[in-house]
Amino acid sequence: MITPPSPTVRDAARDRLSALAIPAGALGRLGEVAVWWSSVRGETTPAPPSHVRAVVFAGDHGVASHGVSAYPSAITGAMVRAFVSGVAGVSVLARQHDVTLRVLDLGVDGDFPDLDPALGEFKVRRGTEPIHLTDAMTANETRQAIDAGRRIAEQEIAAGADLLIGGDMGIGNTTPAVALIAGALGLAAEDVVGRGTGIDDAGLALKTDVVATALKRAGDRVADPVELLAALGSPDLAAQASFISTAAQAGVPVLLDGVISVAAAIVAERLTPGVAPWLAAGHRSTEQAQWRALDALGLEPLLDLDMRLGEGSGAVTAVPIVRSAALLLSQMALLDELM
Amino acid sequence: MITPPSPTVRDAARDRLSALAIPAGALGRLGEVAVWWSSVRGETTPAPPSHVRAVVFAGDHGVASHGVSAYPSAITGAMVRAFVSGVAGVSVLARQHDVTLRVLDLGVDGDFPDLDPALGEFKVRRGTEPIHLTDAMTANETRQAIDAGRRIAEQEIAAGADLLIGGDMGIGNTTPAVALIAGALGLAAEDVVGRGTGIDDAGLALKTDVVATALKRAGDRVADPVELLAALGSPDLAAQASFISTAAQAGVPVLLDGVISVAAAIVAERLTPGVAPWLAAGHRSTEQAQWRALDALGLEPLLDLDMRLGEGSGAVTAVPIVRSAALLLSQMALLDELM
Repeated sequence: MITPPSPTVRDAARDRLSALAIPAGALGRLGEVAVWWSSVRGETTPAPPSHVRAVVFAGDHGVASHGVSAYPSAITGAMVRAFVSGVAGVSVLARQHDVTLRVLDLGVDGDFPDLDPALGEFKVRRGTEPIHLTDAMTANETRQAIDAGRRIAEQEIAAGADLLIGGDMGIGNTTPAVALIAGALGLAAEDVVGRGTGIDDAGLALKTDVVATALKRAGDRVADPVELLAALGSPDLAAQASFISTAAQAGVPVLLDGVISVAAAIVAERLTPGVAPWLAAGHRSTEQAQWRALDALGLEPLLDLDMRLGEGSGAVTAVPIVRSAALLLSQMALLDELM
Repeated sequence: MITPPSPTVRDAARDRLSALAIPAGALGRLGEVAVWWSSVRGETTPAPPSHVRAVVFAGDHGVASHGVSAYPSAITGAMVRAFVSGVAGVSVLARQHDVTLRVLDLGVDGDFPDLDPALGEFKVRRGTEPIHLTDAMTANETRQAIDAGRRIAEQEIAAGADLLIGGDMGIGNTTPAVALIAGALGLAAEDVVGRGTGIDDAGLALKTDVVATALKRAGDRVADPVELLAALGSPDLAAQASFISTAAQAGVPVLLDGVISVAAAIVAERLTPGVAPWLAAGHRSTEQAQWRALDALGLEPLLDLDMRLGEGSGAVTAVPIVRSAALLLSQMALLDELM
């Protein structure tokens, strides 16, 4: 069980919030986020997040060639190149908010011989097996991905991160993500499947069948988080789950993104119970599985902008909101000071 | 009728949005805001808002001493001092987002002899009359406040504003604001009244009676925006309405805040039809009148954080979202460039 953020500091932050020269509750969600930020930083009036580091975990998914996605797997590699050259959505947002962005190839079905080899330092395999037919990856590969996620988080923390973000890039990634959420929470395929990047009704029905078949195939193995990841996950998802778990164990908060990131958080909570209090939710995605998983984690998203870009983009968009919350709690006048 | 933003530029921005290397619609609301920003700036890929200027219009309201507010009018002056010393909520947020903040006393029931006289340069009167008993101010004072709002906007535009924000400070201000919205839109008191800074059920019933009585007293005069402002408004509300109208006439966009700001926008649209396309809505407040008025203007708020602080704080919190939208549209790769 992970040590929770300090209840003493949380109470002190709540007291300060109540003492501000504003009507009770007038900051709304910003007040809640401010108290969360104080608690995870262990100070009543901590500095706002200034060393935010985002990692995009890239990987391909065997199901992508089975009709569950509107796009071909070749896009994954092209997008990895877009991250490297700074023209992807999350790259633009990371520059805007002074967020350090790192892209890592955990399981892309292709190589990048012309790019920095550090990109593939943690690569586990090329793509995964289609999860409705067989396990996504072997037990050994799963352990390798979990170990990668831990080492990546340790590197980011050593680099000074005060807030971490995990993003994902991989055509087909919403299929294993919603399968993991359904498997972990005991939900049916139709309660988790969404349109991803934009499949039509026929695609949605097919995707629901794929997830239902995958869940049936996995059976009781979903009760164990490592077996769950092997059966229904992927190297990028396993690494992000372990990345989140490692951050929480180290007392470093994580700002979640959309359905992939939240699926990883659900698995992280199973790997190491007590992760949730270290998390905040950046945005509400268009995927129903994300909403259900956030409910299970007890989290409410900060933004609701109908974004479904992935890549960690929703979380990075929410960074200034977390900063606003921290600044308001520490810099606004107290009623005592004003009157 | 105000000239609308360029439809040609709007279409070109939409075309660029469709050509980005992302699934259709994946930017959600950010895509819509980006197209709006392009249209109001008259360029397909304009720079993000970098000269954002916010004006807080301060004033007291005669109804405040008639049980409609949880706080006494003395708070208004104390808060003006908090703006001047930079410890109010909107002051903190404005520093975070490099927004120039100016506070002006249009009608505070008190003076500030120890502060910069510029604060009171546009002062119309001390407080207003209670609107359920008599007109808030005279026709002459109303014209004076409208003229002040025009000159204030002209000054801000001359100073280089590319995006303007109007905020309001004044105990009791939600009462005239919702009365203006009800008067302009033909709504009943119970459809617009909310809890403001936090009145109880008895306060809510009393506030509803005050607004209903004020609307009945104003009668058909609500059809004329200047008479509406005189009967039910205040110098700060009249000045903000004129500020918004002047900005739109000059082709400078305005980011709206909560119920006070949106009430001013509703009146601005009556003063000079065609204001609405120059506006965006920063946040959804907790006041039902704000939602109804935004619907009438055809606007959907960017943030929904249960904030009810006023002062322009919701709009300033939303500034980075508008910037994100502009940056994404101009800096992300097009599909053609990527593949």
